[in-house]
Amino acid sequence: MGETFPMKGGDGAHSYAKNSQYQKKASDSVKGMLEEAVIESLQRESMSGTVAIADLGCSVGPNTFFSVQNLMDAVQKKWPSETLEFQVFFNDNFGNDFNALFAALPPERGYHAAGVAGSFHGRLFPRNSITVVHSSHALHWLSKQPQGVPNEGRIHYVGAPDEVVRAYSDRFKEDFKSFIVTRAAEVVRGGVMLLILPATREGVPTANYPAGFLFSYLGQTLMDLANEGVVDKGKIDGFNLPIYVPSAGEVRKMIEKNGCFTIEKMELTKPRGSDDGPIDVPELIMHLRGGMQEICALQFGDYAVEKMFDKMSEKRQHMSEFMQSNYRREDGTQLFLVLKRK
Amino acid sequence: MGETFPMKGGDGAHSYAKNSQYQKKASDSVKGMLEEAVIESLQRESMSGTVAIADLGCSVGPNTFFSVQNLMDAVQKKWPSETLEFQVFFNDNFGNDFNALFAALPPERGYHAAGVAGSFHGRLFPRNSITVVHSSHALHWLSKQPQGVPNEGRIHYVGAPDEVVRAYSDRFKEDFKSFIVTRAAEVVRGGVMLLILPATREGVPTANYPAGFLFSYLGQTLMDLANEGVVDKGKIDGFNLPIYVPSAGEVRKMIEKNGCFTIEKMELTKPRGSDDGPIDVPELIMHLRGGMQEICALQFGDYAVEKMFDKMSEKRQHMSEFMQSNYRREDGTQLFLVLKRK
Repeated sequence: MGETFPMKGGDGAHSYAKNSQYQKKASDSVKGMLEEAVIESLQRESMSGTVAIADLGCSVGPNTFFSVQNLMDAVQKKWPSETLEFQVFFNDNFGNDFNALFAALPPERGYHAAGVAGSFHGRLFPRNSITVVHSSHALHWLSKQPQGVPNEGRIHYVGAPDEVVRAYSDRFKEDFKSFIVTRAAEVVRGGVMLLILPATREGVPTANYPAGFLFSYLGQTLMDLANEGVVDKGKIDGFNLPIYVPSAGEVRKMIEKNGCFTIEKMELTKPRGSDDGPIDVPELIMHLRGGMQEICALQFGDYAVEKMFDKMSEKRQHMSEFMQSNYRREDGTQLFLVLKRK
Repeated sequence: MGETFPMKGGDGAHSYAKNSQYQKKASDSVKGMLEEAVIESLQRESMSGTVAIADLGCSVGPNTFFSVQNLMDAVQKKWPSETLEFQVFFNDNFGNDFNALFAALPPERGYHAAGVAGSFHGRLFPRNSITVVHSSHALHWLSKQPQGVPNEGRIHYVGAPDEVVRAYSDRFKEDFKSFIVTRAAEVVRGGVMLLILPATREGVPTANYPAGFLFSYLGQTLMDLANEGVVDKGKIDGFNLPIYVPSAGEVRKMIEKNGCFTIEKMELTKPRGSDDGPIDVPELIMHLRGGMQEICALQFGDYAVEKMFDKMSEKRQHMSEFMQSNYRREDGTQLFLVLKRK
């Protein structure tokens, strides 16, 4: 079992449940695409009376519930005259708060719910038992920190020496390969996988994307705190945030190499509408906090994390300006993938 | 959704996990019977490549893991040359600590685990999806407190007026009927249900059984505390412990009325070996505390519950003597039921 990096649990001000609107916007932007994917690609042979849906990296809700509902609606739209039963498996790492997830389940949900704890880099379900796999904003999490490469003064690969970038990319390849191999065993013939993950366009540096920029800013802020004596510099050097944003090409290559799935659709999309105005940096910081607080607290302690996010909030004007000038709005930042099990 | 009555969570001194040895002994005593039941009754037609096992009322472990292992061993013993995959659904009410359950899962378990939160008096799984249902020491819990019948100075039906006993028995009948109807939908043809629950022999008063005696002692202890001003007497009058110990005949009648299952075996067994010596009252009290603490604390508050168990411990000698003289050791106290889906 790899390391686990839970989202901030409960429903407090900094909880993931209260700070996943950014992810929700991202999910909403693909709602139509999910429906289209189900209608165009899902085969009737993939289900008996029951449609088994698995959401991998579901966290504690509510976004997972919206996605599942969208998928169910699409299936029912495709086969309106059939009486289908739905079973939904909500999966996340062992550290996830499944009690909170169960408590948040919609009361009138129209499906049988089950929670499955474990890494999606390994087997989770019996062979040929899943009709639809969905995973949104989870596959960029690595199974463990890339290790054995010196990465002084940074917590990520953005701006790091080539060997650090390579260690990250190798880790991602291993992880994504395990993911595809295990899912190939579990998804029935004619079933689909709908994957949404942050990705870059070939040749555009990760640093120019909001995610890359934020992680490097996080590292710089920690170094400022190290200089103030709040954080031990050795802890920064010894920590590699286990997140990798692959290029679309890297992902395509691995799917083709595995050979069990056909690529029905592969598109770099923009999570936010182009008329949404400038990037809302405070919102991005809150979002980052929901996802990063626990893992950073494990390494640096609660006090340092508190200070770190305070410092980032103070610098939001500077961050915002940097972001506006470096982020090319025309580039999509999230990869939407539809795979069909051969 | 009915009320939920969680066992005491975590792993502290009074947790269910640390105080379920009594239940474990009871489970061990039926290990051989479980194996026999699987080997004699389970039909090959009830499974494709996957054997789906559901443990209903699983609590947080570890007993559920022992039972599941016993069942898997039995299936593999019956079909030694087949490559079967196992999927196990651990079910309990929404209040159960599923995070603790997942954390306690055996690392080398040989099955795909899933948690399912919800009342087993309602639907939990898709139609025809379960091969083996197991439930040990859970079916005597009612879906809610019997209400609308005056039951002054008692928290249970032992020693109560007829109408109270009837309200309990009616509630149990409703609940057991819902249980059987919903399971009939979920269990595949040729699949089995292995149910273990406390029960009485026709004509022997519940008060003469350890469970009945303990609940009535619990009520008397609360009344003592009411007389000392520690507990509000109104709260005792307004509370009916939602536990019913049916007679074997009551259970048989309802299964036959439903008609979807054949009764392969129905036996009143003794949970403890007859050479185990006298009943260990302190152990019984600890066991009772593991199961009753949370529900009693909800009604009477933590302080009163602390006092209540202190008082029972003080009186253990008296309890022990009463128990030895009233409990007829030759009577079985747990019903072992093997049902096959027609």
